[in-house]
Amino acid sequence: MICQYVSIKTIIPLSLSSQPLNSLKSDEAGPKQGPTFQDGQRRVDYVLTYHIQKPQSFRRKTSHFGDYRILRSLRRSLSMMRGRDTPPPKEDPEVAAHKHRLDYHEDDKRFRQTEFEDNLREMGLELEKDEGNKIPGIGFLKIHAPWNVLCREAEFMKLKMPTKKVYEVKQGSDVVERINLFIRKATAPLHPKVEPNRAQNMLFYPLLSCQILYDEWASYSVFYKYQPIGLIRKYFGEKIGLYFAWLGVYTQMLIPAAIVGAIVFLYGCATVDNDIPSMEICDPRNNITMCPLCDRACSYWKLKTACGTARASHLFDNPATVFFSIFMALWAAMFMEHWKRRQMRLNYIWDLTGFEEEEVSLCPYTTACLLLYVCSYFSLDYVLITLFQEKKVKLTCTDRAPAYMTGLFTMLIMVGVTFAVVFGVILYRISIKAALHMSSNPTARTNIRATVKGTAAVINLVIIIIMDEVYGALARWLTLLEVPKTDKSFEERLIIKTFVLKFANAFSPIVYLAFFRGRLNSLLLYLCAHAGCLMELCIQLCITMLGKQLIQNNLFEIGIPKIKKLIRRRKSDMDSQQQEDYNMTLQRHEKDHFLGPFVGLSPEYMEMIIQFGMVTLFVASFPLAPLFALLNNIIEIRLDAKKFVTEVRRPIAARAKDIGIWYNLLRGLSKVAVIVNAFVISFTSDFIPRLVYQYMYSPDGSMHGFVNHTLSYFNVSDFQPGTAPLQPMHLGYEVQICRYKDYRETPWSNTPYDLSKEFWAILACRLAFVVVFQNVVMLMSDFVDWLIPDIPKDISLQIHKEKILMVELFMKEEEGKKLLRDSHANQSPLQPRSRPASHTPSNWSMQVRSSQRICALLTRLRI
Amino acid sequence: MICQYVSIKTIIPLSLSSQPLNSLKSDEAGPKQGPTFQDGQRRVDYVLTYHIQKPQSFRRKTSHFGDYRILRSLRRSLSMMRGRDTPPPKEDPEVAAHKHRLDYHEDDKRFRQTEFEDNLREMGLELEKDEGNKIPGIGFLKIHAPWNVLCREAEFMKLKMPTKKVYEVKQGSDVVERINLFIRKATAPLHPKVEPNRAQNMLFYPLLSCQILYDEWASYSVFYKYQPIGLIRKYFGEKIGLYFAWLGVYTQMLIPAAIVGAIVFLYGCATVDNDIPSMEICDPRNNITMCPLCDRACSYWKLKTACGTARASHLFDNPATVFFSIFMALWAAMFMEHWKRRQMRLNYIWDLTGFEEEEVSLCPYTTACLLLYVCSYFSLDYVLITLFQEKKVKLTCTDRAPAYMTGLFTMLIMVGVTFAVVFGVILYRISIKAALHMSSNPTARTNIRATVKGTAAVINLVIIIIMDEVYGALARWLTLLEVPKTDKSFEERLIIKTFVLKFANAFSPIVYLAFFRGRLNSLLLYLCAHAGCLMELCIQLCITMLGKQLIQNNLFEIGIPKIKKLIRRRKSDMDSQQQEDYNMTLQRHEKDHFLGPFVGLSPEYMEMIIQFGMVTLFVASFPLAPLFALLNNIIEIRLDAKKFVTEVRRPIAARAKDIGIWYNLLRGLSKVAVIVNAFVISFTSDFIPRLVYQYMYSPDGSMHGFVNHTLSYFNVSDFQPGTAPLQPMHLGYEVQICRYKDYRETPWSNTPYDLSKEFWAILACRLAFVVVFQNVVMLMSDFVDWLIPDIPKDISLQIHKEKILMVELFMKEEEGKKLLRDSHANQSPLQPRSRPASHTPSNWSMQVRSSQRICALLTRLRI
Repeated sequence: MICQYVSIKTIIPLSLSSQPLNSLKSDEAGPKQGPTFQDGQRRVDYVLTYHIQKPQSFRRKTSHFGDYRILRSLRRSLSMMRGRDTPPPKEDPEVAAHKHRLDYHEDDKRFRQTEFEDNLREMGLELEKDEGNKIPGIGFLKIHAPWNVLCREAEFMKLKMPTKKVYEVKQGSDVVERINLFIRKATAPLHPKVEPNRAQNMLFYPLLSCQILYDEWASYSVFYKYQPIGLIRKYFGEKIGLYFAWLGVYTQMLIPAAIVGAIVFLYGCATVDNDIPSMEICDPRNNITMCPLCDRACSYWKLKTACGTARASHLFDNPATVFFSIFMALWAAMFMEHWKRRQMRLNYIWDLTGFEEEEVSLCPYTTACLLLYVCSYFSLDYVLITLFQEKKVKLTCTDRAPAYMTGLFTMLIMVGVTFAVVFGVILYRISIKAALHMSSNPTARTNIRATVKGTAAVINLVIIIIMDEVYGALARWLTLLEVPKTDKSFEERLIIKTFVLKFANAFSPIVYLAFFRGRLNSLLLYLCAHAGCLMELCIQLCITMLGKQLIQNNLFEIGIPKIKKLIRRRKSDMDSQQQEDYNMTLQRHEKDHFLGPFVGLSPEYMEMIIQFGMVTLFVASFPLAPLFALLNNIIEIRLDAKKFVTEVRRPIAARAKDIGIWYNLLRGLSKVAVIVNAFVISFTSDFIPRLVYQYMYSPDGSMHGFVNHTLSYFNVSDFQPGTAPLQPMHLGYEVQICRYKDYRETPWSNTPYDLSKEFWAILACRLAFVVVFQNVVMLMSDFVDWLIPDIPKDISLQIHKEKILMVELFMKEEEGKKLLRDSHANQSPLQPRSRPASHTPSNWSMQVRSSQRICALLTRLRI
Repeated sequence: MICQYVSIKTIIPLSLSSQPLNSLKSDEAGPKQGPTFQDGQRRVDYVLTYHIQKPQSFRRKTSHFGDYRILRSLRRSLSMMRGRDTPPPKEDPEVAAHKHRLDYHEDDKRFRQTEFEDNLREMGLELEKDEGNKIPGIGFLKIHAPWNVLCREAEFMKLKMPTKKVYEVKQGSDVVERINLFIRKATAPLHPKVEPNRAQNMLFYPLLSCQILYDEWASYSVFYKYQPIGLIRKYFGEKIGLYFAWLGVYTQMLIPAAIVGAIVFLYGCATVDNDIPSMEICDPRNNITMCPLCDRACSYWKLKTACGTARASHLFDNPATVFFSIFMALWAAMFMEHWKRRQMRLNYIWDLTGFEEEEVSLCPYTTACLLLYVCSYFSLDYVLITLFQEKKVKLTCTDRAPAYMTGLFTMLIMVGVTFAVVFGVILYRISIKAALHMSSNPTARTNIRATVKGTAAVINLVIIIIMDEVYGALARWLTLLEVPKTDKSFEERLIIKTFVLKFANAFSPIVYLAFFRGRLNSLLLYLCAHAGCLMELCIQLCITMLGKQLIQNNLFEIGIPKIKKLIRRRKSDMDSQQQEDYNMTLQRHEKDHFLGPFVGLSPEYMEMIIQFGMVTLFVASFPLAPLFALLNNIIEIRLDAKKFVTEVRRPIAARAKDIGIWYNLLRGLSKVAVIVNAFVISFTSDFIPRLVYQYMYSPDGSMHGFVNHTLSYFNVSDFQPGTAPLQPMHLGYEVQICRYKDYRETPWSNTPYDLSKEFWAILACRLAFVVVFQNVVMLMSDFVDWLIPDIPKDISLQIHKEKILMVELFMKEEEGKKLLRDSHANQSPLQPRSRPASHTPSNWSMQVRSSQRICALLTRLRI
């Protein structure tokens, strides 16, 4: 199977697998150069694997690349069929295509493999085959790249050579320098033990660099250290290097956020005893009778039973929270800026300033073959037939429309499903609660609230985790249906779809709690306890964050791979001793064959983006979120590091200038966070009603009387038939007037139970707060964005100096040339005409734009 | 004076001056090459002028560059003084500096001129002097750039040579092609008559290209045509080319906005008779008595006297306005996107894709010399002395702080002054109005409103125009004080300051009218008429836009230069015949010496940005603004073209990739426009109160009764002492209850004159509208931004194809080299080692990053 070639892996120990590291050390101490060809001279740079015998699991897809196997053979059959010039038999295209696939498969294989190897040799690579000595059915193709091929590719990539002259950029005055030195000394233990010289020349000894990565990076014992980003990039390529650099910056930036968040929480704890509204609620003298919270089953209750909740919610609902959400909005802006600068710096250090990403088509006849694949897979016969009849297969808008519409509707339906799940959980809560209310057991009753909240949150969590996996598969299917033209476009579309679905999944219960809970009372007949909505939001966030991270990290990222490995070992029918012996006989590339494939960075990024959403979007309701995120990420970095170094095949090094679409998603999130926080503060928390009470209604300017002000009166004789409580005497006395939390007119006013003037005044204040908050924070974010230059000053200075160096060099060369020309001119008068023309680089022109050139000249003279 | 050299001008007819063009044609018909050196061979590319005799007006500043003269000599004296190593005499540094300046001036002059000319010769330029034959006191230095110098500079600028292979990008199918052809044919008369081939080779014949520009661009008769942007860029350079391209795109984009705006206005006109509220106001049966609009002087009035205003304001205050402001917000986003694409396309066509702007220092010892200049100019002695005593003159934050603080406070004060002016105009209105109210002349009274509004708007306009000039000078002074490091930074800071000041100046009366007018009633005791605030805003906008454009365009841009020229002629003591004879004897560069200098593009851009602000910011109150702007710009383009071609010296061609900071300002404005429009619609217009009435209060769901609903009751017995009208019987009957426009409780309620529930409900609705409008429009703008790719598809395809071409070329070259090397290797075994190394471009490196290179190789093979 030729396409298996795609699973490229290097023989350089891309991964330490499960071998003890010590043996590796002693094993490789001799030949530092790593594995070589049979001649012992030429180094092995890459290893490709292929199946020698007919593969067992032909239609089994193992990874994204696996699909391409089918594509290739389909493409071949397509081109064969086109040769006939007649439309294919109409009998059953699906069956026909499948038959073709099987027929051509065997003939195709050997021919295409030879063709492929010839292509590699044509590019100047040297090959060596290693077929079937240890692992039955698997062949290895070792590749060596000679020096001149490397040189040519270096020129293509425009790799820069370090110049002899190095400009040292001084950082201001002596004092500043001394401070910098002090900081460097103080943070010295935080830096990984990678000697810069060794890191530079490490590539000849990749084994060593892997060893360093294992010791200084992929270990929990160094969790407090910076990551050796330079080494990571050298070993894994720029794309993965950028991911870890980003993760590092994010984690680092979480430290101040976590500290401030903890302080805000502690402030809440410290002031809980001075909070007048909760004191009033807990005060037994305020003997307020509340109306029932649901129809019939519930009865009247005393406000002071909500004392605990009121006190607890003060922890998260205090003026410091407002400050904290402004802080976090600015924090997000700072983070984005900080990352831009770091990225720019890495671009400079990694010589990527001139690099431009090229978009690679998925396959030469992209649209035709992909669509064919998709159609045959989902048996959309009509499209298939149309395609066969057309000569020029180019997808127009009308071809694409069905796929887009399918995508859109499926997405909408899935988001709908997500909300339906939330609704289901609500129904569960209502029914359980009503059932428990009915029961006469008093201990059951007191535990009602905690039980219901806890179980509901856990159910939500489990559903979120299950749906996450479903949505991942769904997004991939939808993207395939859209037939994107290039790899990059495929990845971006997939990411956007996955993001929307997973985000809706993770946040729908939270959004419901934050914005709809307290307002659907007439519909669901179920209210938050007094000041309790924020509290519940907080519990939900807490469980989702902790649970999701714990379960997804530990179970999915560590547990499942381990289980898979165990199962694989079981299957091989060897005991552990035999297994170990067998392993010892294997060469490195053979060992690596048993490792799992690298599945891309998207899942890692996605997890972090969702976490970033939790940290920024609902920070007003849960100031401890950054702290949780920080703790998680400290583990996450080392966990990912371990995975990359030891558990998957070494990924192909890919160049990348930036983190691509993830940056846009982060930016979008931090924008949305501003408005969401504005709404959480003004609508979910009691911040605005308290302010309004204090400055507009309070007789003495204090918060005394606030609780009474928020409660409206209800005359029990106004109950709709069939809604009055079944146990009106539950509290031991007959209730005439009960209270409920809303701003409505009294029963004895002209317009009983209408929304009162206070309601409208508070609503206006809430909205005014949203407008002011949103615009002020957006302005401040833009200001931060504008204030911090995107390119660090020292880097821009360095680039400028290098440019000057280039100009000097060029001028010197020109002068030398002129001298040469002059001396030539004395000898023969014809030569100078031809020389300059031949020397001119082919991509520069001699177009006459005299005035511009002179202008540039004069500018350089600094007149 | 050496620095006069800075006023570089080409001998190529940079400007046609006031000579009739016909003579030019016949004059230059023979030698198409343009003026040459005395030998008749070498072409004159640039001409510099200098004073031969001691200049009369040494300290007179004529332009921005003029200042540098002083700087240079100051720098010299500074370096002289430093040599002494002792602090300068403390007697009077200002006098001392001035003395030095005069002393060194004469010695300096000749030495520095020689040095400068030597520098030019060293760069390979050839010079010829032309001293004092026609114009006394002025010398001309002609410069010729030989071919090899041009080649060298071309390599520096990385000018691209057109390749032989040209990729034709096909635009879709046959039908699309045919449509494109039709469009091209239909718009053919709109394109200027510039043959593409001629345009390409035009530069050897600059006279001709100037002629074409004059005929096909700088003429009002071609107002409906596209501009010959390619030719403009060839003649004036990229920077000016981009300005005109931007102006063209802006004007073109104004066409749909103007059409939609006109339709919205016509819709208002058509529906004015069906508008129920204004019908109710005009209905004589609704005999509503209104409370007086000011204390004592004013009296009660009948609502139906406001009938005209109410009807007029419906023209601008109808539901279509809401649609129009959403439309304009999207229009602004579209405009920005459209311009980005156009800019990208121009960058590609003009070979600017690889060009990076270099920041040029203002002078070598920038900070020191500029600060010296600033200090001596404003006699800040202490700074001067400190500077002389220091060796290393580098400005730290503490040095810069005073300048920044001065800048900030001056700006704040000036914005304060602007608002004070607005307040002054208000006071004028109040006093005039009160005076007229007092008068018993009935005709005077009826004309009161129109008179007051008209005169106030005109006064505002005059003040705006005067302050504009003051602020321009002030911004320059403040920027100089800040001692920016580079030219670009100087320009940007100047632009930002000028923008803030001019913007505050132009918009303060409008902002007052839009947002504060109707709300300051208790303070100023002066209210808009019923539904009249938007009307007045509209009048103000109309007068400001028309007046500013007419006066600034015609008077300042055309009139004043003409007057200056006239005065200059008067001074030269020749009659017109003599003058003409004298002119005929002058060479082209001598004629050009009499033209005005080019003062940069900032004023042109600034004018347009302010106009863009008018068009987008208050579009909700004045839908005709785009139409006015369109009419103005059609004239503006040709006016600017005329000015650039005939009235100023030909500017130095400057390269630029984009329009720089102006883009950011435009972007900022279109963002602010969204929120401003949201506020105008919800707070200035009656849109929200009408909606609220219709859906919450109206008994039958219609607008009937709206006017009554907006008016509160006032019991005349509740007048504060001394505020009751002097003529209570003005209407002929005794008034018990009068009405006023506000939502307040009735005099007979429990809380008389408190804000009513309706007030709060409407306020909440207004704010909700702001929140919804802002976020929806921002989302839509972002969506438009995301939807339209920044790089046009054909351009990105072309770039991609060119890259492939390069790769092919490179591979072919490599193959040739390999063959050569192999054949060499057969002859001598040592040569191949040295050859590849010497051939490698110096800025590419041979660092071994084997895995990456192989990866790139494999990617290109498309495995």
